[in-house]
Amino acid sequence: MLKKYFSIISIIFLVLYSCSRLNETVTVKNTTLTDYVNPLIGTGGHGHTYPGATVPFGMIQLSPDNGTSGWEWCSGYHYSDSITIGFSHLHLSGTGIGDLYDIRLMPINKKVDLTTPIKSRDDIPYKSSYTHTQEVSKAGYYSIDLINHNIKAELTTDLRTGFHKYTYAENDTQSVIIDLGFAINWDRLTESGLKIEDKFTISGYRHSTGWAKNQKVFFVAKFSKSLKEYDLIVDSKYVEKTKSVKGTKTAVQLFFNDVNNESLEVKVGLSSVSIENALENMSDHMERFEFDRIKNEAEKKWEQNLSKILIETPNDSLKEIFYSALYHTQIAPVTFSDKNGAFRQSNDSIYKTDKFVTYSSLSLWDTFRAEQPLLTILDPNRVSDIVNSMLVYYNQNKTLPVWNLYGNETNTMTGYHSIPVIAEASLKGITGFDIEKAYSAMKTTMMQDARGLSIYKEYGYIPYNLLDESVTITLEYAYNDWCVAQIAKLLNKQEDYKYFLNRSKAYKYLFDPETGFMRGKNDTGTGWHEPFDPKFSAHRVHADYTEGNAWQHSWFVLHDTNELIKLHGGNNKFSNKLEQLFTESSEITGENVSADISGLIGQYAHGNEPSHHIAYMFNFANQPWRTQYWVREILKSQYFATPDGLSGNEDCGQMSAWYVFSSMGLYPYNPSSGLYQIGSPLFEKSVIKISENTNFTIIAENVSDKNKYIQSATLNNVNFNRTVLMHQELKNGGTLHFVMGDAPNKNWGVH
Amino acid sequence: MLKKYFSIISIIFLVLYSCSRLNETVTVKNTTLTDYVNPLIGTGGHGHTYPGATVPFGMIQLSPDNGTSGWEWCSGYHYSDSITIGFSHLHLSGTGIGDLYDIRLMPINKKVDLTTPIKSRDDIPYKSSYTHTQEVSKAGYYSIDLINHNIKAELTTDLRTGFHKYTYAENDTQSVIIDLGFAINWDRLTESGLKIEDKFTISGYRHSTGWAKNQKVFFVAKFSKSLKEYDLIVDSKYVEKTKSVKGTKTAVQLFFNDVNNESLEVKVGLSSVSIENALENMSDHMERFEFDRIKNEAEKKWEQNLSKILIETPNDSLKEIFYSALYHTQIAPVTFSDKNGAFRQSNDSIYKTDKFVTYSSLSLWDTFRAEQPLLTILDPNRVSDIVNSMLVYYNQNKTLPVWNLYGNETNTMTGYHSIPVIAEASLKGITGFDIEKAYSAMKTTMMQDARGLSIYKEYGYIPYNLLDESVTITLEYAYNDWCVAQIAKLLNKQEDYKYFLNRSKAYKYLFDPETGFMRGKNDTGTGWHEPFDPKFSAHRVHADYTEGNAWQHSWFVLHDTNELIKLHGGNNKFSNKLEQLFTESSEITGENVSADISGLIGQYAHGNEPSHHIAYMFNFANQPWRTQYWVREILKSQYFATPDGLSGNEDCGQMSAWYVFSSMGLYPYNPSSGLYQIGSPLFEKSVIKISENTNFTIIAENVSDKNKYIQSATLNNVNFNRTVLMHQELKNGGTLHFVMGDAPNKNWGVH
Repeated sequence: MLKKYFSIISIIFLVLYSCSRLNETVTVKNTTLTDYVNPLIGTGGHGHTYPGATVPFGMIQLSPDNGTSGWEWCSGYHYSDSITIGFSHLHLSGTGIGDLYDIRLMPINKKVDLTTPIKSRDDIPYKSSYTHTQEVSKAGYYSIDLINHNIKAELTTDLRTGFHKYTYAENDTQSVIIDLGFAINWDRLTESGLKIEDKFTISGYRHSTGWAKNQKVFFVAKFSKSLKEYDLIVDSKYVEKTKSVKGTKTAVQLFFNDVNNESLEVKVGLSSVSIENALENMSDHMERFEFDRIKNEAEKKWEQNLSKILIETPNDSLKEIFYSALYHTQIAPVTFSDKNGAFRQSNDSIYKTDKFVTYSSLSLWDTFRAEQPLLTILDPNRVSDIVNSMLVYYNQNKTLPVWNLYGNETNTMTGYHSIPVIAEASLKGITGFDIEKAYSAMKTTMMQDARGLSIYKEYGYIPYNLLDESVTITLEYAYNDWCVAQIAKLLNKQEDYKYFLNRSKAYKYLFDPETGFMRGKNDTGTGWHEPFDPKFSAHRVHADYTEGNAWQHSWFVLHDTNELIKLHGGNNKFSNKLEQLFTESSEITGENVSADISGLIGQYAHGNEPSHHIAYMFNFANQPWRTQYWVREILKSQYFATPDGLSGNEDCGQMSAWYVFSSMGLYPYNPSSGLYQIGSPLFEKSVIKISENTNFTIIAENVSDKNKYIQSATLNNVNFNRTVLMHQELKNGGTLHFVMGDAPNKNWGVH
Repeated sequence: MLKKYFSIISIIFLVLYSCSRLNETVTVKNTTLTDYVNPLIGTGGHGHTYPGATVPFGMIQLSPDNGTSGWEWCSGYHYSDSITIGFSHLHLSGTGIGDLYDIRLMPINKKVDLTTPIKSRDDIPYKSSYTHTQEVSKAGYYSIDLINHNIKAELTTDLRTGFHKYTYAENDTQSVIIDLGFAINWDRLTESGLKIEDKFTISGYRHSTGWAKNQKVFFVAKFSKSLKEYDLIVDSKYVEKTKSVKGTKTAVQLFFNDVNNESLEVKVGLSSVSIENALENMSDHMERFEFDRIKNEAEKKWEQNLSKILIETPNDSLKEIFYSALYHTQIAPVTFSDKNGAFRQSNDSIYKTDKFVTYSSLSLWDTFRAEQPLLTILDPNRVSDIVNSMLVYYNQNKTLPVWNLYGNETNTMTGYHSIPVIAEASLKGITGFDIEKAYSAMKTTMMQDARGLSIYKEYGYIPYNLLDESVTITLEYAYNDWCVAQIAKLLNKQEDYKYFLNRSKAYKYLFDPETGFMRGKNDTGTGWHEPFDPKFSAHRVHADYTEGNAWQHSWFVLHDTNELIKLHGGNNKFSNKLEQLFTESSEITGENVSADISGLIGQYAHGNEPSHHIAYMFNFANQPWRTQYWVREILKSQYFATPDGLSGNEDCGQMSAWYVFSSMGLYPYNPSSGLYQIGSPLFEKSVIKISENTNFTIIAENVSDKNKYIQSATLNNVNFNRTVLMHQELKNGGTLHFVMGDAPNKNWGVH
């Protein structure tokens, strides 16, 4: 009996041991997707991204400022710099104009004189140098050592509150400066205020003007240690015996008790409405200081959002580029409304709704192309809220937004690309907004007289002698019109449909069959703008093209590409011209060349958005293998896992969204058509999570650097021999299986 | 201690008791959806449905035959009859032509003389009378008492096998007759054979011609009791000392042992290919007789399929109509390929695939309108297989199917409505078939010369003096052409797109602005067919319209309705004419009036498909409240929970699919457009299950018989003021909430 039991026990142990061994052997390297995210990509060159902490579409972008003005510092930070003046809570991701940088905190280990007038950052007494070797930039977390102050600063955020953790040297003075007075780039202070609320709490506000004309930021900061003393400063003067100050430029230096504990934590709630709202925005964390928990939650949230697309490739550098891109596509637009649904409109009225979250930082000229289409797949409910946000702005401004920053219309860039965003959302079945109201907003916007529309309506195009950037504006309005027409059709507004469809042919006026370019035409309709040099670029003034030249701006006919091909004289002539775009010399002529022309391959300029759809145009002209070739060239030459890894402004997600789509082998091209053009997939496998139980999988068999050409394909195991995938096919889930090879299959996708 | 334990035990008992009480009180009447299914609806009047047992889209339709020929008996059974000659395995649901009725078994309690020549059912010695009071017809189950033989016969099926259970009187002779020789309606026997395989098994085949020119049915029947003796008959002669017979007409009477046990079970596997395949089709049940389990499984399968739409209404009669309709939409097309993927083509070659299930009974002229659109929502994978089936038929016939029956092209009805089915599926993102191949099939089909296409191509329309039914054919080809154009566009076949789009305007040739009707035009293009009476109908010969008159056939412009309205002279003129359609006297003139004109409301004929979209046309003319009014009139006057509850042929699901859609407040109108027209919902709530986690819910607040008019609506809590819902909106899930009232809101849905 004993022996028998012993045997049984032995077996049990053996089994348990085997199991543990098994566990051991199957343990794999537990890499999370956030490990592949490198927010520093784009912080060098002219990507204009910021390296700091944020959560997906968060209100807070808590990031270091170098204190330097200049195009390189639009985000407040450039990788080439090595000095910081602190950590402010609002930043722009990849824009070409600099603003925000509000509510900046800087930890320091000594008292400094804050009365010195500050002309440039050299005058700032609390600045510190840092090195990239001690910098950590991750999804939802940023940390850096402040060399001059012997402090390690760490940052994380949740949706509407920033969290700081400052670790001082043992027994050092523990001080924090909040300087609301210093501004860079377009940011200009109008008023600010600070108040010592209690021994743990500071509140305040910062009103500024700049790119956003009326920007009011309110905040509450709570500290984990009690205040020992503080110095309040108004317009470079210390103010004694008061707990609050008000003025143009205010600042405070705070000193804390309990220096034996080396770490000081701070949390900062923000609001565009009021200090009360700022407090409510941080209400979840009111009495707790849990930096590490918040950091973990931010990381978890990112992991969740990044896992909406799973890619398989043996190349870890590609994974870093891809997931950093996917990260960058999810940090703008930003949450603008407070926890209670309120936000400040540019006329200072407070709008409040519990029906949707309001978003700002709408860089629509860029994002309508691929960023918004990506969100229609990964985050349709957010698209609905973004449309609702635009309709609120419409209610106030009586036109749909062009480029909305912190609730303000900046009127930056050409066209009205809120219109394709709304049309795309509607036509993809995204609901939650009033399409009737939206249509009325679209129509009113396109029927007004401002922004060249009176001229456009009168002439059918914009003559170059009446308005600058006439070619780009005409082409973009034509596309906007086509989008309005599609919604008119949906709503059975027959007259409108015909009217806008007719207007959408405006591009035809500007096509010059002699040169094969879109050109400035005068108001008599008889003369082209002479002399003509397709490589000539002027920035804004006397420009026919926006941030580019004729080479880059002659292709924007997303809605009627086949007609454009006909204007060129057919597939061959069109393809030859297109090929020439990529192979011409990269010289740009003129004395006032736009800095936005970058990322050149020939005259193709990937660094700016007007080029983004062009490589896909070969598909329309029966040469899909040239699309495959050039898309691969762009993927290879314009994106790197380095700080200067973007070839131009990130533009609130657009540059990265191009990569996310194109690396999977798809591109939304004309987003409102619901069709994705097929390019050349880069990964063995991409799995897009459509919903809980539905995935769309893209497989690229035999894919490699050399094997860039599609040999054949199947969709759900059935022959797939066309260069478009429908949104509905994607949404229904399934598998698109490409077989790749090193030579073009000139029969695939050709009709 | 004891006391304490006692208390605890008391509490436990109390809790258990309370729980059981709770269970008792919350127990609700456990009605299953199958309880609402009444397959007898449509077996009276001219619905032409069958009352027998089938599973969703099953190969087997095991149903009683009355043995009577005539239009009323297209399904083999009419509710007015009271005699049956047995239970055969193949039936059509709601067609206007009768065929099939293959492999008929009749239980009997005595030996009968099978040598009498049979001219009509009066000569059949084994017939029996029955009464409806002893008839049970449910989803997946049928039972009837055979009065003359003192037998209760029960029927159920699985996908490819029929199951019979015959309960004889105590100690009665237990006999079954299999008579392969008798045929009704278009069915004509060519050859048959029977073989006694062993003491439990009979096999055989029945080859016939008729509506399906080449129909070969093979079967194996297995019995739960051993054979005692049998009589084999060939062409009215008994054949002795053989175990198998072959001839034109064969029959067998079987006698069984073990009469103490009153129930005899039989299972019958069918195949179009071979006896081996028939056996394999029943392989799951090879050695078991489990009638009750199969019956339960059939019911479970139906419950699952019916639960794809849940409706809420206090009116149980409406529930009966609705779920019987939903049942009828899921019994055709029928599974045609065997378990191993093989089926017989009309040229006798065997096609075999493991990639999809092949379907037959494709009543496309009917089903493209609402039946197929319903399947795109409830059963998209089956739609994919149906398209693949059509492509197989194309491979054999070199044109897409018109009306496929048991693998044969019957060439019944006008147009090529496989084309809208394929186009709709593609444009709704349904995959799993080769769209390139499908396009090539579409184009080849519409470019051939047969079926009036050479004339249509030459003249742009079909002149009445060159081909009968010229108006209907022209209008239908125009719509087919539009569908081809949409796929050409998707595949970037520009020339084809323009060509077919241009052809799709063909309806314009036939519109007579004088009378406001579509009329026969002669081949010189100058003269209308005179004299003209819009109420005149001729059946086929000398007819300009198919199964109808000018009143019913002047509205088929699904793809270009706004242009049709213009031809009429605008919204008001159009609406007035449309209103007149419903209010004209119902007289139909002519000497050869089509029997298919039924279900008349004025000249509107709901009993036949050409009328099905018409009530929704007011939406296009800015009078949605008239659509709401007339749709409700049709719902109320054309559908009842009685055997004669359908106003015309059920037509393989179309008549019922109209009800399923319209009662929920939607109608697919032009299916390839992906738009549903809004009518007037009948139920408080309808929930369409889109996928595991996604529902689309339609709520009609305040709905009642009187409250038929939409006052306002929201989609996902946002104002909804249009008369179309997009397929993508439906697929994305959400809630469409109508508020109903008793007076029209003439502002809702109007532009």
